[in-house]
Amino acid sequence: MSTTEPWQNIVARKQDERSSKIPPEWKIPGDLLPPSEVLDVQDFPRTSGFFTDRELLITESSASDVVDQIATSTWSSEEVVRAVCKRAACAQQLLNCVTEIYFDQAIARAKELDYHLKREGKTIGPLHGLPISLKDQFNVPGLDSTIGYVSYAFKPATEPSTLAKLLLDAGAVLYVKSNVPSTLMMGESVNNTFGRTVNPRNRNLTTGGSSGGESALVTFRASFLGVGTDIGGSIRHPCSYTGLFGLRPSHGRISYQHVVNTYVGQEAVRSCAGPMCRSAKDVRLFMSTMASQQPWIHDPQCIPLPWRAEQEVLPEQLCFGFGLGDGTVTPTPPLRRAMEITKAKLQAAGHRVIDFVPTEMAEASRIIYQMWSADGFEEFRRDRDASGEPLHPDLERWMANTEHAHSISSTWQNQNQRAHLARKWLDKWQATQKETGTGRPIDGLIVPSTPFPAIRHDGGYPWHYGTLSPLLDLTTGVFPVTKVDLEKDKVSPDFQPISEKDKEVMEYYGCPENHENALIGLAIVGRRLEEEKVTRMLQVMSDVVGVDYAT
Amino acid sequence: MSTTEPWQNIVARKQDERSSKIPPEWKIPGDLLPPSEVLDVQDFPRTSGFFTDRELLITESSASDVVDQIATSTWSSEEVVRAVCKRAACAQQLLNCVTEIYFDQAIARAKELDYHLKREGKTIGPLHGLPISLKDQFNVPGLDSTIGYVSYAFKPATEPSTLAKLLLDAGAVLYVKSNVPSTLMMGESVNNTFGRTVNPRNRNLTTGGSSGGESALVTFRASFLGVGTDIGGSIRHPCSYTGLFGLRPSHGRISYQHVVNTYVGQEAVRSCAGPMCRSAKDVRLFMSTMASQQPWIHDPQCIPLPWRAEQEVLPEQLCFGFGLGDGTVTPTPPLRRAMEITKAKLQAAGHRVIDFVPTEMAEASRIIYQMWSADGFEEFRRDRDASGEPLHPDLERWMANTEHAHSISSTWQNQNQRAHLARKWLDKWQATQKETGTGRPIDGLIVPSTPFPAIRHDGGYPWHYGTLSPLLDLTTGVFPVTKVDLEKDKVSPDFQPISEKDKEVMEYYGCPENHENALIGLAIVGRRLEEEKVTRMLQVMSDVVGVDYAT
Repeated sequence: MSTTEPWQNIVARKQDERSSKIPPEWKIPGDLLPPSEVLDVQDFPRTSGFFTDRELLITESSASDVVDQIATSTWSSEEVVRAVCKRAACAQQLLNCVTEIYFDQAIARAKELDYHLKREGKTIGPLHGLPISLKDQFNVPGLDSTIGYVSYAFKPATEPSTLAKLLLDAGAVLYVKSNVPSTLMMGESVNNTFGRTVNPRNRNLTTGGSSGGESALVTFRASFLGVGTDIGGSIRHPCSYTGLFGLRPSHGRISYQHVVNTYVGQEAVRSCAGPMCRSAKDVRLFMSTMASQQPWIHDPQCIPLPWRAEQEVLPEQLCFGFGLGDGTVTPTPPLRRAMEITKAKLQAAGHRVIDFVPTEMAEASRIIYQMWSADGFEEFRRDRDASGEPLHPDLERWMANTEHAHSISSTWQNQNQRAHLARKWLDKWQATQKETGTGRPIDGLIVPSTPFPAIRHDGGYPWHYGTLSPLLDLTTGVFPVTKVDLEKDKVSPDFQPISEKDKEVMEYYGCPENHENALIGLAIVGRRLEEEKVTRMLQVMSDVVGVDYAT
Repeated sequence: MSTTEPWQNIVARKQDERSSKIPPEWKIPGDLLPPSEVLDVQDFPRTSGFFTDRELLITESSASDVVDQIATSTWSSEEVVRAVCKRAACAQQLLNCVTEIYFDQAIARAKELDYHLKREGKTIGPLHGLPISLKDQFNVPGLDSTIGYVSYAFKPATEPSTLAKLLLDAGAVLYVKSNVPSTLMMGESVNNTFGRTVNPRNRNLTTGGSSGGESALVTFRASFLGVGTDIGGSIRHPCSYTGLFGLRPSHGRISYQHVVNTYVGQEAVRSCAGPMCRSAKDVRLFMSTMASQQPWIHDPQCIPLPWRAEQEVLPEQLCFGFGLGDGTVTPTPPLRRAMEITKAKLQAAGHRVIDFVPTEMAEASRIIYQMWSADGFEEFRRDRDASGEPLHPDLERWMANTEHAHSISSTWQNQNQRAHLARKWLDKWQATQKETGTGRPIDGLIVPSTPFPAIRHDGGYPWHYGTLSPLLDLTTGVFPVTKVDLEKDKVSPDFQPISEKDKEVMEYYGCPENHENALIGLAIVGRRLEEEKVTRMLQVMSDVVGVDYAT
């Protein structure tokens, strides 16, 4: 590749390569292909006739069921992998959510795993035969990890990410990588290299970002479980926008080694990898399996913490904090409704709920944006300019508004402010012990991930609630609750904004029609390194809150 | 205090205040006071007649014995505290190792604890009645924490360090704070505010730094157990210089919250607090007690890891790496001898020892020095200039050689290089599994802390082995082995340096007479967050290696 090749040519070659990896038999015939004005394509696999009943049965199962079915030889890994690859091929054609396709290698590995199981009578690990999708950051030898940048294209990895290796060791089958925004620092997954990922329930909406290719794949049942990453909401927002379960673990539970990333060497605030899937049980499958692989003997940044099953045993009565906004911006009607549904169902099930407004979020955002812009975007510019592409206007605007890199002294001050905020947060959390009636502080804090549901394309974010968890490294899960309701989710004429920003956000939301058919998830924030408990609380949410829409 | 008061006046006031805190009856009478040309004052308490037999018995016990004796009401806390305060008062007069003295409060608290035990029939915690000394960084309300800076004097703390609070909760009695170098970034404890701390076994030598006041106190039996901190060797070097046991835990085991520190807000490489004491059992007492206080519910930087007793159960046969130098500088004769003694005794006890040269130390030093100078010493200059004092010439030289602060981009690169080095180190450690014969990688790595024993004052450090453990956050213990031998520790006429630096270091060592009577400790490096195992291995060293000198 010439370094002077126009970036548009590189894009064309890259997209041609991607198209060529979809076998002709999985290309949707013209007469079945929904025209672009059909916005809801979520049910395409069921209604088009393009899938067999068995393919539908398989792909609509949970990851936990799939590994059981394969382990008992009810299904072969090969048929599972073929079914999910076919569905991923359709997802790509309808949603543009995929960056790298390697179906052939996946099917070959599935055959090997089937052969192993037949020959040895046992699986190679707890994920034996399960296809798992990866956000484009994770390295798989022979494939690119572009994180959206044109300048990263056609530079295939030679070594797998440690996480990819551990997944393979546990028996997983890797088959596809998923789309992101360039730089990973946007709430929508769009870039010049691969284009824009759209929401299967309403193609005018985004599936969020930066792990928006994953949320599209998993919600479309084109993946049982995907691995995303999150430094400011990038697992939580996409999961909340598409009605998935997800977990943003604390740093050191899941390996992030040898992963292509933005802000290379930046350690003030950490991106963390975690699962995005369709059940709390699948969150547990991923997390417990990864812990059982002892990542700390492969990755020095991992903490030597096995999966602590004893911490999954919760008291019968839990007490949750209820964070209806952050004191600056209140949730828009569908999120408020989701919060109230959750509260009522938890209380009906005998749990306790107390108000706990995380007013620290505004300060968290101020601090974290300093961390995200510390180098004055030297890295973003370098990787943008290497191909000559422009970045998304939202990114260019952010970069233009940051005039220069920070000094070391100012970053130390900023980090010190974080330390103080972390202490304030912990003290506030501990102090709830007096109010919960359980003898303990709150077990978890329920908050919306964003004040609004899935937004229209290029919508930007005027405000969100995503920064406190990564800044303080708090284990945070996401669970689905409801979907946008055109009747119930109108803005009340009595709405009184609590701040200018609140007014702005409510105007941004506008009306439920702007978010039609979007699913609504909420987040549950735990303490740092509380993955077992938060995962178990996701199961409680699943059992108690469930969802009030037909899947 | 006027800001224009000459710094020398502030020093005079501060030192007068300190002197005034020593009761007249604990001032050494002129006829007993060893003249300055008497270099070895270690035995003064035993030989001077200034202490009663019971005071000697008490102060020469271990911390573990003391808590047992108090818990069984054999000794009162008050008599223990009085005895150790008296010995600390002598230590101050002979060694100048103390910054803050609060004997009155200590005795008052000891009385309360004695009363509690009598009334309730039980202790308030595992450290009930035990006096513990603290490095000058730790805040105690009403007392200064100057870390040597004149500009920090007469600014008493209002809130205790979390560690101080947890120690008190566990029953400890705080009575004295100990000397450091200004900035904490020197290998000798000397500053304008409090002067120079000297080594009780040879007052021409240093007790090291930056926790050199602690090593002086503990080796002189003026403290059973002190708390030091270590970002580059500040627990390990003083312990090695004075024949103490010590532990530099990984970050997150021991609280470092609300501690006065240098490099405030710097998080690239962490200083960690840990115990300095006279037995491996006392290391365990401190570490297990601190874990039992659940520091993570008080300090968000602490990892929720209880004391994992199961990790103290070691296989019968261990295999140690043997790091005779770092490939650039070899240890000088007494350190080499200590290494060989240790190897021979471990082998004789049935353990295995394989060569493992930590050649990564040179790279670790390069990276860590970038972290230590990242702000171009803006903070050092600010705190120096606030009083007008000059810093130690070694510090001024270091500062002068660093022309400007680093850029954010270069610090990110540096941190990324650390991540690569950490991985390389872990892979190398894991790879020893093929050589150990135990089926495991090496259990620990035995290395000298420095190439030389305790040095003369103002000696500087031409090279040391202290940077790898903090850079990679490796749990590292220290144990005593031997003492300098004027016959055995001459430089061999056949010495062939392996590098220019090696030659320089051997010339710096010179001859054993330069280090006469110094004790020699070694370090044992574990993995990250392996406090239980490393503490247990210190017990193995104590049992198997012991010491070959009379205490």
